[in-house]
Amino acid sequence: MFIIVGERINTSRKNVREAVSNRDKTYIQQDVEKQQDSGANYIDVNAGARIGHEAEDMQWLIKVIREVVKIPLCFDSPDPNILKMAYDLVDEPPMINSISLEKERLNRMLPFLKGKNCKIVALCMDDAGLPTSAQDVIDRAEKLVCSLEDIGMQRDAIFIDPLIQPVSTNTSNALTVLDAVQGIMRKFPGVHTICGLSNISYGLPQRKIINRSFLSLLMASGLDAAILDPLDLNLMAVLRTTEMLLGKDDFCARYLKGVRAGKIQA
Amino acid sequence: MFIIVGERINTSRKNVREAVSNRDKTYIQQDVEKQQDSGANYIDVNAGARIGHEAEDMQWLIKVIREVVKIPLCFDSPDPNILKMAYDLVDEPPMINSISLEKERLNRMLPFLKGKNCKIVALCMDDAGLPTSAQDVIDRAEKLVCSLEDIGMQRDAIFIDPLIQPVSTNTSNALTVLDAVQGIMRKFPGVHTICGLSNISYGLPQRKIINRSFLSLLMASGLDAAILDPLDLNLMAVLRTTEMLLGKDDFCARYLKGVRAGKIQA
Repeated sequence: MFIIVGERINTSRKNVREAVSNRDKTYIQQDVEKQQDSGANYIDVNAGARIGHEAEDMQWLIKVIREVVKIPLCFDSPDPNILKMAYDLVDEPPMINSISLEKERLNRMLPFLKGKNCKIVALCMDDAGLPTSAQDVIDRAEKLVCSLEDIGMQRDAIFIDPLIQPVSTNTSNALTVLDAVQGIMRKFPGVHTICGLSNISYGLPQRKIINRSFLSLLMASGLDAAILDPLDLNLMAVLRTTEMLLGKDDFCARYLKGVRAGKIQA
Repeated sequence: MFIIVGERINTSRKNVREAVSNRDKTYIQQDVEKQQDSGANYIDVNAGARIGHEAEDMQWLIKVIREVVKIPLCFDSPDPNILKMAYDLVDEPPMINSISLEKERLNRMLPFLKGKNCKIVALCMDDAGLPTSAQDVIDRAEKLVCSLEDIGMQRDAIFIDPLIQPVSTNTSNALTVLDAVQGIMRKFPGVHTICGLSNISYGLPQRKIINRSFLSLLMASGLDAAILDPLDLNLMAVLRTTEMLLGKDDFCARYLKGVRAGKIQA
């Protein structure tokens, strides 16, 4: 089953930032309940936007979110100290977002992850920057998988993010990611692939329409997880129909359930 | 570039049937002008619904459509006599829809097609009925390609239709077609593949949403033509975004043109 990481609790979004700043528990709790009801498997929590407040904001968010939802959280920070702090606050195995091949981050994250019960988002980023070809993505994925397996992590816990670059700057950028996802899923059976979709449409108008078609294409290439807004009905309709068309919805059950709930409509 | 066959002039549609019955030239001409403006490369003409009137209806439709559009027509009939009659009425090389492996149809169509300047839609249907697996589709496509090449047709003139069966009756039906299209495009370079989309969603609610996602998936598998409604803005938006994401829209030009024309919008 496709794994949905609900992206809405991110202090870079104005409403969330204000709610966090005002400690508006109701706003946050209603939002995450809706995400859970809409099919989110994880709630991403990113408290990075209020400079100097990340630790306390993250702590508060974890507390109020856990009061209302059962699904696990995904801690989203480039700072290993924040991730460690967050990990210790929960019982259900969380997703950690993220590790990368950047030396400093890798060297701080690997010892922390060793022996931990969690999922890990692994970005195909290294100190040279973004990957430059599908093969480059696959090579980086291999290094990430090896590093994580070396410290005892299971493949099922590893979510490789190939990193999407905008199609507006190079019309082959989408194909590169599609090829990379297919390559990773073939070469490392058991590993997951995950994306944030929206970077693909950066610089173009009507971005949501592009993001939607890209989700179908990514799923056809084998992508089995995404960080997205589960309240975006059009995007979720694409997800459920694509899942069904790819033979991953027995008896069309999830699709029909979505239609009956009024969540899949023209 | 993806080839669009506009499907609207079909007497199985009530409005078209009435317009044909009343010889309402304006209705038909406005419709086909809109299809051409929306990006249709061919106008499909199907006059099969008024029993006993197919020949005269087809003749009238061809005449009134050719008065207003420049793009070629696609003659859509199971009856070789109708197709022959229609072929003789036009100068621009038309698309002929269709031939199949059904013995009687094949034996009547091949001699007619020999030496003609036209495109041909070739259905993967034989006297045993519909294909039962992706390999079966590919085997049938091979027979069609061989038969058509034997009478001197070029691959670029051949549009193989793998025949879509509803995902509601078997959840692997979409995957079968996706695999078949990929197989055909690999095995017979230069050949086109074409589908009518809507059969995939037969028996399910909210069919258009399913058809849209299926178009993206088919294009990712290599499908390069479809019989569809070019006035369906949501479907066309999926087509243009998918084309762009698959690296087939230089400088995102067709996408941006569609947005500026107000044809691609959320």
